[in-house]
Amino acid sequence: MSPNTLRVIPLGGLGEIGRNMMLYEYGEDMIAVDVGVMFPEEEMLGVDLVIPDISYIMDHPGRLKAVFLTHGHEDHIGALPFLLREVQVPVYCTRLTRGLVDVKLKEHRLQAASDIRVVEVGGSIEVGAFNVEFFSVSHSIPDAAGLLIHTPLGTVVHTGDFKIDHTPVMGQHTDLQRLAEIGREGALLLAMDSTYIEVEGFTPSEQIVADALERVIADATGRVIVTTFASLISRVQIVIDAAEKHGRRVFVTGRSMVNNVQMARDLGYLRVPDGIMMNARELDTYPSAKTIVICTGSQGEPTAALTRISNGTHQNITIHADDTVVLSSNPVPGNETLVYRNIDNLYKAGAHVIYNRLAPVHVRGHAAQEELKIIHRIVRPKHFIGIHGEYRHLVLHRQLAITLGMAPEDAVVLTDGDIMEIDEHGARITGHIPADYIYVDGLGVGDVDQIVLRDRLHLASDGMVVVVVALDREHGDLLRPPEVMSHGFVGLEEEAAVIEGIRERVTQIVGGEHQHVDWTGIRDALKNEVASYVYAQTKRRPLVLPITVEV
Amino acid sequence: MSPNTLRVIPLGGLGEIGRNMMLYEYGEDMIAVDVGVMFPEEEMLGVDLVIPDISYIMDHPGRLKAVFLTHGHEDHIGALPFLLREVQVPVYCTRLTRGLVDVKLKEHRLQAASDIRVVEVGGSIEVGAFNVEFFSVSHSIPDAAGLLIHTPLGTVVHTGDFKIDHTPVMGQHTDLQRLAEIGREGALLLAMDSTYIEVEGFTPSEQIVADALERVIADATGRVIVTTFASLISRVQIVIDAAEKHGRRVFVTGRSMVNNVQMARDLGYLRVPDGIMMNARELDTYPSAKTIVICTGSQGEPTAALTRISNGTHQNITIHADDTVVLSSNPVPGNETLVYRNIDNLYKAGAHVIYNRLAPVHVRGHAAQEELKIIHRIVRPKHFIGIHGEYRHLVLHRQLAITLGMAPEDAVVLTDGDIMEIDEHGARITGHIPADYIYVDGLGVGDVDQIVLRDRLHLASDGMVVVVVALDREHGDLLRPPEVMSHGFVGLEEEAAVIEGIRERVTQIVGGEHQHVDWTGIRDALKNEVASYVYAQTKRRPLVLPITVEV
Repeated sequence: MSPNTLRVIPLGGLGEIGRNMMLYEYGEDMIAVDVGVMFPEEEMLGVDLVIPDISYIMDHPGRLKAVFLTHGHEDHIGALPFLLREVQVPVYCTRLTRGLVDVKLKEHRLQAASDIRVVEVGGSIEVGAFNVEFFSVSHSIPDAAGLLIHTPLGTVVHTGDFKIDHTPVMGQHTDLQRLAEIGREGALLLAMDSTYIEVEGFTPSEQIVADALERVIADATGRVIVTTFASLISRVQIVIDAAEKHGRRVFVTGRSMVNNVQMARDLGYLRVPDGIMMNARELDTYPSAKTIVICTGSQGEPTAALTRISNGTHQNITIHADDTVVLSSNPVPGNETLVYRNIDNLYKAGAHVIYNRLAPVHVRGHAAQEELKIIHRIVRPKHFIGIHGEYRHLVLHRQLAITLGMAPEDAVVLTDGDIMEIDEHGARITGHIPADYIYVDGLGVGDVDQIVLRDRLHLASDGMVVVVVALDREHGDLLRPPEVMSHGFVGLEEEAAVIEGIRERVTQIVGGEHQHVDWTGIRDALKNEVASYVYAQTKRRPLVLPITVEV
Repeated sequence: MSPNTLRVIPLGGLGEIGRNMMLYEYGEDMIAVDVGVMFPEEEMLGVDLVIPDISYIMDHPGRLKAVFLTHGHEDHIGALPFLLREVQVPVYCTRLTRGLVDVKLKEHRLQAASDIRVVEVGGSIEVGAFNVEFFSVSHSIPDAAGLLIHTPLGTVVHTGDFKIDHTPVMGQHTDLQRLAEIGREGALLLAMDSTYIEVEGFTPSEQIVADALERVIADATGRVIVTTFASLISRVQIVIDAAEKHGRRVFVTGRSMVNNVQMARDLGYLRVPDGIMMNARELDTYPSAKTIVICTGSQGEPTAALTRISNGTHQNITIHADDTVVLSSNPVPGNETLVYRNIDNLYKAGAHVIYNRLAPVHVRGHAAQEELKIIHRIVRPKHFIGIHGEYRHLVLHRQLAITLGMAPEDAVVLTDGDIMEIDEHGARITGHIPADYIYVDGLGVGDVDQIVLRDRLHLASDGMVVVVVALDREHGDLLRPPEVMSHGFVGLEEEAAVIEGIRERVTQIVGGEHQHVDWTGIRDALKNEVASYVYAQTKRRPLVLPITVEV
């Protein structure tokens, strides 16, 4: 690497690129931007979380100087404990992000050992060759920031997740002024959110949601139950404001909602009028027509409050015919079935349900095409990369940049692990670092691999059959009738016949004619014969596990 | 049941109501409308298909007189073989639907024994107390029909899946004239498609897609590859017409696309100019800029043509930089990951990709709100039920009917298995028949039940551990070191340590102190101890299978 070179490396993702982590390197100095988790895909059976591969950081001890967090969403901070367990570096973030990080570190018992430092928006931090400045952006969580990473080669504008909202409910604008200033000075690289590149026009303002929610609450004759993302503090503020205006009191339920509301109150991000909150005992006796419930479960999570409310198992809340339930959220792809199952159950219980297809009770947190164009225009960078999006989003975002006048060679599409080097001659991809997915399952980090997942998929689709034979050590004779067990294979009724068939087949296979008992051969024969018998009978391929006991 | 009563029973569904089958009964006469399959949800591991419960039909032998099919989509005809295997009744449908049914019955070796009769649109069939008339509707497959079921009590309008398209590409309109006539005479019941009740306005015409696809093909400098649903014959016609216009030849690939194109040609539904089709050998030598490929894979199905093309494993087609790939389809919910993975891979291979978020290359096959209102207005039924939709859709559709002036008691929401009775006094739900889901897995119908699925979920999430101990028959002494095996549990590296730990634990549990050997007790102890040891070590709960061999 030539000395005067900036290296840019996206990590994380699961299809999305650089969503969870970005590395910037200059000389022997490295900083990481965000350290988030990915949520497992369907075929990653039993996996709880997926985290970025940090082996490149581990292979270069001492090079990583600091971590910068743009905002407090899980896909940007969730893997921090796994990194901090391995390397001790300071972490810089805004105040609310710190609040959320603290909760996480406490859970992992890492709080004492960690060094988390709050930076105000507008403030900047000197780390080795870098000077990193936080600038304000609008997003679906307060205190979100983009980063201006000043390097000896020029300034990198790293937007993080953002949208442009001219009437945000909690007052946080995307700082177009500062970006324009950087643009005038000449930006080296723009690394921009690409999540909603496919969406034309502008993302509507949070104020639209405020108006819609207020109208729902004004019109409701009975109780109103609102669910949203626990981190979407502005949405909670909207509901509390409407409650105050319409003389209702508020009950909060669901662990993460209770925790986040408390934390946002403590840190001053949530304005809660005195006496408006109530506890479970008050909820029982207070008139429903004067009650608003704010709860978790916007994604249909099986144990979240709204799911328990909708299937009648919530400890405090039973649906009545005059209840209005508002889902102030969109289902994340993959969660549709769970979300719509809740909605159907709420309708069946008699509630009136309002969700995003029926009224504008939710807006996205990411910039659409016209907003992205504005940033391109005012930053006017020398180089551009799309971040936070799947491959096609980055291709489309590059096309947009070219449409806006950028030279094709200056707009680069990276995939996770790609090393892009920028120097005075330009930008190019010069190599690739390991960027595997690390699966977290239970307590284990990285102990589930592709083979384990393949076995699980096999077990999941056809179940398994275990065949136990006790054999004479000398001649391989069957000493007792074979034992056959199955799990997840066929139902009880059909099982008996198939298992009897397997027993007969096994008894035929293991005869006494062996001179030298070939145990591996017997096991292979059992496995193959049983598998093909089962397939012929049922067209299924359960995992067949032959167990020979030599006596 | 009073003699002069019509009974209406929706079946099938998986969340959707009456999507796959509807029963209409009058006295001792029963007809079934559609006999379709459902596709399994995520948690139905290893299940291939789900079919409606026909036990009510089986419990009343001789009552079912005939089956009527509205159109040839899988969710309306796919379960027919399972029904015809049990009962011999005539099946009435339009010509193209019959073509698709024949293919299916041939696969199930039921063609000779079945009695499938073609009815022209406008024609009608007398079956017991019913006279069933087919009327033309627009939908995303040719020859789709709604049914006018004339009964002694009045006429039922059963729309089937439909939309209103004033400029359909293959000339099939929804017959508003005939519906208006029925409305003037006075309709008893309107049973209407509710799939897109949440969508405002009108579903765009297929002509919009024709224009968009033609523009794409006109503008493309290289090869064009188009994927769509194999049954969407009008879309195939659009591509063939555009090919002719722009002097390109057409290669068709993917089994179901090849079969459907052939069948639609044979039956005269597809106009194919002479010499426009080419085979794989011609494809190799013909100029790409003069080639169009039509293929399967619009839903990202793992073995479909487009998936193989996109991951570089198709036998004839390798992506080049000047290829344009068009996905003339929308991902069905649940398939998004697979579809977008293909798109990402096509972009990575250098293709230009056009899909529905970027250009109007697909329209829905179902009516939106304004179209539904038109049908309500011209049919002006005495009673209304929504069909083909999830519970919330039916609630919203009922609300729409009430908004349009219907009395609340005349607009009914049914769920699968509900019996609605209509007589001169009105309509009401009077009972419920079994409406379970029957799982089809491999060759087995109904042999996979909830317990099997639960076991599969368990195996899928944490894998399994098998412990085999050979014990002395008299004292329960351990005769040899225990054998421990795992599948889908943890990776090889970590496995060794955990398995060694299990071995030690097992050795401690089975001691020689037993006077009377309690085999069940030993197995329970092994299971519990191993499970809790494994959980403490790994926070995972694999299925633990203790096997004791008494010697």
